[in-house]
Amino acid sequence: MNKSSRISSAAAPAPAKDAGAVAHPEAAPVSVALVGFGTVGRSVARILSSSPAHLRLTHIVNRDVERKRVDWLPGHIRWTDNFEDALDDSVDIVVELVGGLEPAREWARRALSAGKSVVTANKQLIAHHGPELLELARRQGCQLAFGASVAGGVPVVSGLQEGLAGDRLFRVCGILNGTCNYILSKIEEGGVGFAGALREAQQLGYAESDPTDDVEGFDARAKLAILARVGLNCEVAPGDIACRSIASLEAVDFLYARDLGCTIRQISCAELRDDGRLFAAVQPALVPLRSPLARVQGSQNLVMATGEFGGETVFSGYGAGGDPTAVAVVSDLIAIAQGRMNGFHLAPVRKVAVTAEFNAEHHLRFTVSDRPGIIAAVSGILAKYGISIEAVLQKPGYPSSRLPFVMTLVKCPNSLVEQALEELRHLDFMVEPILSLPMLP
Amino acid sequence: MNKSSRISSAAAPAPAKDAGAVAHPEAAPVSVALVGFGTVGRSVARILSSSPAHLRLTHIVNRDVERKRVDWLPGHIRWTDNFEDALDDSVDIVVELVGGLEPAREWARRALSAGKSVVTANKQLIAHHGPELLELARRQGCQLAFGASVAGGVPVVSGLQEGLAGDRLFRVCGILNGTCNYILSKIEEGGVGFAGALREAQQLGYAESDPTDDVEGFDARAKLAILARVGLNCEVAPGDIACRSIASLEAVDFLYARDLGCTIRQISCAELRDDGRLFAAVQPALVPLRSPLARVQGSQNLVMATGEFGGETVFSGYGAGGDPTAVAVVSDLIAIAQGRMNGFHLAPVRKVAVTAEFNAEHHLRFTVSDRPGIIAAVSGILAKYGISIEAVLQKPGYPSSRLPFVMTLVKCPNSLVEQALEELRHLDFMVEPILSLPMLP
Repeated sequence: MNKSSRISSAAAPAPAKDAGAVAHPEAAPVSVALVGFGTVGRSVARILSSSPAHLRLTHIVNRDVERKRVDWLPGHIRWTDNFEDALDDSVDIVVELVGGLEPAREWARRALSAGKSVVTANKQLIAHHGPELLELARRQGCQLAFGASVAGGVPVVSGLQEGLAGDRLFRVCGILNGTCNYILSKIEEGGVGFAGALREAQQLGYAESDPTDDVEGFDARAKLAILARVGLNCEVAPGDIACRSIASLEAVDFLYARDLGCTIRQISCAELRDDGRLFAAVQPALVPLRSPLARVQGSQNLVMATGEFGGETVFSGYGAGGDPTAVAVVSDLIAIAQGRMNGFHLAPVRKVAVTAEFNAEHHLRFTVSDRPGIIAAVSGILAKYGISIEAVLQKPGYPSSRLPFVMTLVKCPNSLVEQALEELRHLDFMVEPILSLPMLP
Repeated sequence: MNKSSRISSAAAPAPAKDAGAVAHPEAAPVSVALVGFGTVGRSVARILSSSPAHLRLTHIVNRDVERKRVDWLPGHIRWTDNFEDALDDSVDIVVELVGGLEPAREWARRALSAGKSVVTANKQLIAHHGPELLELARRQGCQLAFGASVAGGVPVVSGLQEGLAGDRLFRVCGILNGTCNYILSKIEEGGVGFAGALREAQQLGYAESDPTDDVEGFDARAKLAILARVGLNCEVAPGDIACRSIASLEAVDFLYARDLGCTIRQISCAELRDDGRLFAAVQPALVPLRSPLARVQGSQNLVMATGEFGGETVFSGYGAGGDPTAVAVVSDLIAIAQGRMNGFHLAPVRKVAVTAEFNAEHHLRFTVSDRPGIIAAVSGILAKYGISIEAVLQKPGYPSSRLPFVMTLVKCPNSLVEQALEELRHLDFMVEPILSLPMLP
């Protein structure tokens, strides 16, 4: 019997948060190697050093580790530059917090191959290589846990996979990127457009100096791919999920949205269709103010899961940051130490065809150099594609050389709107790209 | 090895929601006896008959079972009046859905004693006899699962106990009684007072003909006792939790609350104090409209858990009804069948002293027979107790013989307010009992 199967079958006690009135059996501590000692790693170390007595941090691996060393951790911990040390016989679980695809993938493979369970907060690793690593874990009789890879401290991976296991979920939607949500909340508050809000987010450390992954939706789509797996049992490559940027949003869009009883959020959504395909997309959308999605402020995350039997269940909280993410990592460590992970990775999943087609009302914002005949020209093209206009909104106070106005469209396929846009964008009075946003019902 | 330890160590596959592209090992089905075939029982049977292939419903026990028999379940199921049949050797898990304390307790004891795991949706059973039954389950090497006992389909028991296991939670607050929330939402909508809203809830089947348990907070306090156990590791007798009724609320209270940017909800809250005591209470309170608690409409439930590391995490969804509650039951069945329940009931808990004392702003509604000197008399008594008035609100349009007005008080201990109220209620111009509500920050 290898070490990891000892762990997964051990009935270890729950973390001793407090001296208990109820006796519980003693169990040998489970040894943990932490690979990556940044913000999340430090938080994990702090939680481990302060409470769950049966989890024992034994190794900390980091490049140039001496500059990382802290004095508040026990002396027995081995500080090392060398990942090989994490494969020491004494280690039961390797926590991968280096991020990115390589060497994270190679290290996770090596740890699993050595019979160690792996806990990771790495969304890209799981979104891209989850199936291969889960299969390796299964063959090795180890666990691969990734609760921290989606929505930080919000326990949505276990919530979908275990808490709602009894339902048949068909839709998972949410706000999965705190950086975008912070930026959009800032624009909503007024006074700044996208560029200003991004700058502020960067100054506060909420956005990277290269914000592409967040702003273009690549971060959220990796998380959505993971949720589609754990919630809908569908295998989706992140690259198959359509993404649209939030970079063209301006303050005026929120003013018009507000007139429609809405705000704007980056929405990630995966939905099983009756034809067996999976709709999956990450895009900015108009969200009714009464929706829980509209009320997510700043860097919070929210996931709504909809099932055949249980209806809509919502999970929300802090989706990022060292401490919340560390809570998810430690919760996974406890689950493995308690032998509660058995069978997770055996959930049958299926490969599905992915579509980005949907029917929705649309909100189009045009910025034009004003002159007579604009509405006629635009509505003529829309009519040609059989698209009906619901409303035209035009606020006063903008220069006629750069005049924004909005049309909302009656529910129709987004592909039809895309075709019309292709023609509309060539109209010579358009002075900015047309912004098209779906409106959530 | 008895049957149940076979179950708890089996690495059975997750429910086959769909034919999987990934192969998974076959496992012997786990046999389930359903005791109680009401609304929830029928939903459990429907879910079991349609999806999770490794769970096999074998017995349905109900009084006068013939009138309950349905034609959409497989022929192999044994329909019986006799609970003893559920103890048959072939049964692995007994699902207790009869409710109430007896015979539910006796049946749960007998099932566990016979080496069978028990899944229950019975909040009173777990709140009152949880410790004794969990200890019996531990001794027998079986599981006792009760995810359905709080907040129906919202996976908050597993969310606190597993999903947030890595945090140190110190507060759990929520809306745990859908009937009260329905009644309060109705009064909020306008046009009806408590009596009218209750009548409507009764007509729609949301409230019992005797609504005492809901309205007085007894239902919610049983659930709060369970959340205090699983979230805060505190053992609390439901009877030690202070309850205040929602029966004296009227439409006018919501009008005044709205002026303060608030609404009114029945709030259940348990919080670990620095002195080691546990604050626990179920009471109507003013809730700021921006709080997630304020937005819970109709019969929905919501739980906010606050931890030292992860901050505030929110779970919400359908807290009652056959199908959502059945989702929680089936999720527990799957967890037991997959061997994911090991060690749950070993979480060390401690008995704590319970207090209902808190510091808060207060909202007092007086209904008086108007005459000069009322404000002076009331404010004089408040001043005597060192209580400062924040604001006085009086809306026009009420008869002077029955004039409601509101005072809000600066933050102070509720015990001080209670003392002042004892004196205030004897003032001869008071024509109705004084309503006192704390205001959530």
